[in-house]
Amino acid sequence: MILERFKVPEKDQVLVSEQKLRRAVTEIFEKLGVSAEDAAEGADALTLTDLRGVETHGVSNMLRAYVRDYKAGKLNPKPGWRLVRESPGTAVIDAEKRLGIMMGPRAMRLAIQKARQVGVGVVIVHNSGHFGAIGHYAMMAAQEDMVGVCFTGAGLSVVPTFARKPLLGTNPIALAAPARHEAPMLFDAATSAIAGNKIRLAMRVGSPLLPGWVTDSDGTPIMEEKPVFNRDDIFQLPLGGTREQGSHKGYGFALMAEVLSTVLSGALPTMLLAGSGSKTQFVAYNIEAFTDLEQFKTTMDDMLKTLRTSTPAPGQERVLYPGLSEAEELEHRRQHGIPLHKEVVQWFAECTRDLGVAPLDAGGPR
Amino acid sequence: MILERFKVPEKDQVLVSEQKLRRAVTEIFEKLGVSAEDAAEGADALTLTDLRGVETHGVSNMLRAYVRDYKAGKLNPKPGWRLVRESPGTAVIDAEKRLGIMMGPRAMRLAIQKARQVGVGVVIVHNSGHFGAIGHYAMMAAQEDMVGVCFTGAGLSVVPTFARKPLLGTNPIALAAPARHEAPMLFDAATSAIAGNKIRLAMRVGSPLLPGWVTDSDGTPIMEEKPVFNRDDIFQLPLGGTREQGSHKGYGFALMAEVLSTVLSGALPTMLLAGSGSKTQFVAYNIEAFTDLEQFKTTMDDMLKTLRTSTPAPGQERVLYPGLSEAEELEHRRQHGIPLHKEVVQWFAECTRDLGVAPLDAGGPR
Repeated sequence: MILERFKVPEKDQVLVSEQKLRRAVTEIFEKLGVSAEDAAEGADALTLTDLRGVETHGVSNMLRAYVRDYKAGKLNPKPGWRLVRESPGTAVIDAEKRLGIMMGPRAMRLAIQKARQVGVGVVIVHNSGHFGAIGHYAMMAAQEDMVGVCFTGAGLSVVPTFARKPLLGTNPIALAAPARHEAPMLFDAATSAIAGNKIRLAMRVGSPLLPGWVTDSDGTPIMEEKPVFNRDDIFQLPLGGTREQGSHKGYGFALMAEVLSTVLSGALPTMLLAGSGSKTQFVAYNIEAFTDLEQFKTTMDDMLKTLRTSTPAPGQERVLYPGLSEAEELEHRRQHGIPLHKEVVQWFAECTRDLGVAPLDAGGPR
Repeated sequence: MILERFKVPEKDQVLVSEQKLRRAVTEIFEKLGVSAEDAAEGADALTLTDLRGVETHGVSNMLRAYVRDYKAGKLNPKPGWRLVRESPGTAVIDAEKRLGIMMGPRAMRLAIQKARQVGVGVVIVHNSGHFGAIGHYAMMAAQEDMVGVCFTGAGLSVVPTFARKPLLGTNPIALAAPARHEAPMLFDAATSAIAGNKIRLAMRVGSPLLPGWVTDSDGTPIMEEKPVFNRDDIFQLPLGGTREQGSHKGYGFALMAEVLSTVLSGALPTMLLAGSGSKTQFVAYNIEAFTDLEQFKTTMDDMLKTLRTSTPAPGQERVLYPGLSEAEELEHRRQHGIPLHKEVVQWFAECTRDLGVAPLDAGGPR
């Protein structure tokens, strides 16, 4: 459901196949000292996110930041596995600065294992690097016939309603649930008006920001369309934008994610400790502990189909549900390749030369 | 954090003490055939909601609907207790048309009990009457040194992004978490731009609706300030209002609540079965299974105080956090009484006469 303004313009696109992108990313991670298992896990998270069309959190926007942080020693390529506290249904893990996209899959697998035992599993990871698109981990649960949910707390970019300065991160929340014939539900949204990475993306593609997305440097919501030239001139608004439009709800959802990930794991939010890393709560609900799995899937199908086939409002083309366009994009990109911005392909050339690994082989799957 | 426009005008206020309101509501429920235990539980939920200043979901807006539904046989005053499925961490309960405000406390207590055993407890109730303000149940967990979360699916009033007709309810989500010196965090928000009851309330106090709150009868967002005369002329928008402002996120949160309450419990959403009742998922996280309880409370205090004392944006008075004004209101109203609209007091007079119970004794606590 990405807005047109955020898409890579066709003239700037270079198509790359899933396999080739996955291989290049894996080799870059391995060269940075990451274990083969972690490198494959990280490349999988990033590539799948690009395949789903979530460019803000895929290779284009994120990989260069990860490479930079490994080089700067902010990420630990070979961390241990420290279980801080555990009970039959829960666990807390200190990621020891492991990159989140390599930590998330392990955490969700542990949550799934616990949900098999006691019906529901909750695993919280703190002291971690960036988690990328957390919908990826929720989908892992959906693929095991569970409902997956994630709450992330990280960063300092969103201004609470009525406040002057940012005190919260964009703190995304995600849910995935399986269906039978319909594409699975996959909801993954920042609790800010727009995702932080969308601002970076908008600046790269030269697109203005819309009213109600950001504040000026005093925390006052900017209510007109405006291009961004300096990222430091603006802060982000919670979902809702203004109090009248419900920004106190977006603010509340951000704080909810912060409590469920950060505070519940014994960590400190960024507002209290700069650089305290990312925290995510991973929940797996074992559907069979609650109801008949086949009935669940039938209801999901009926509900999602009802939404998808409902009459659009005048002037609208069709009604989507969360995960529908991602599933369509996945199919399309697996067949035709992933459109990277030519500037990203250029970065790959420099990065692989720098690290001395094989260059990214551009060109679609056929 | 209720907007000024929704408050009962001072000239129309009648002050009633907590004890007297609680007693009158209990007696009305008992006279309708409800057990003493259920009546007390329901009166407690309603009265506390009024004390917290959440008038939309307190006695004023809700009791008359409940009385009407008992009389019409839509609610069962003496239902059983049917545990549909259970595991160490989870349970599903068929409410057999018990009123939600009497079902919720039992469900959250069971979730708390499970969380003591396995770290987290999830209980879902379906086939229930209205749950009122679900933050009330989340608070029950917070009072037991747990984090409480609720997700509700009910009704058919919110138009999905780009759709023509409502297919989802206002599906609220709530979280409560304890602190030590600060008032506990209490977040309770409809995933629609405004709560459904706020429209009723706005009509009663003659207040216009703001841009981005509702659609016209074709699903097109109304983007100007407008009074409502006929409830049937309008539908509700998801949080965010328009696609550009993030309504697809509000829509996603509504669907998330629907999956976690309705579909996961084996029930059908209202879009597939009219009159299928309310469904709520109750989650209790045992803080001690995750981290040190005292550290949790210290971090909550530090975080909430940082928010509360942060510099406001120009023109703003102060920064709130979810639950702060509710706690202040609770203290104030316990001391000075609950301001009911005189029209509500008149309804009480008729209702108690009708049922043959003692009239509501108006007048503050002293």
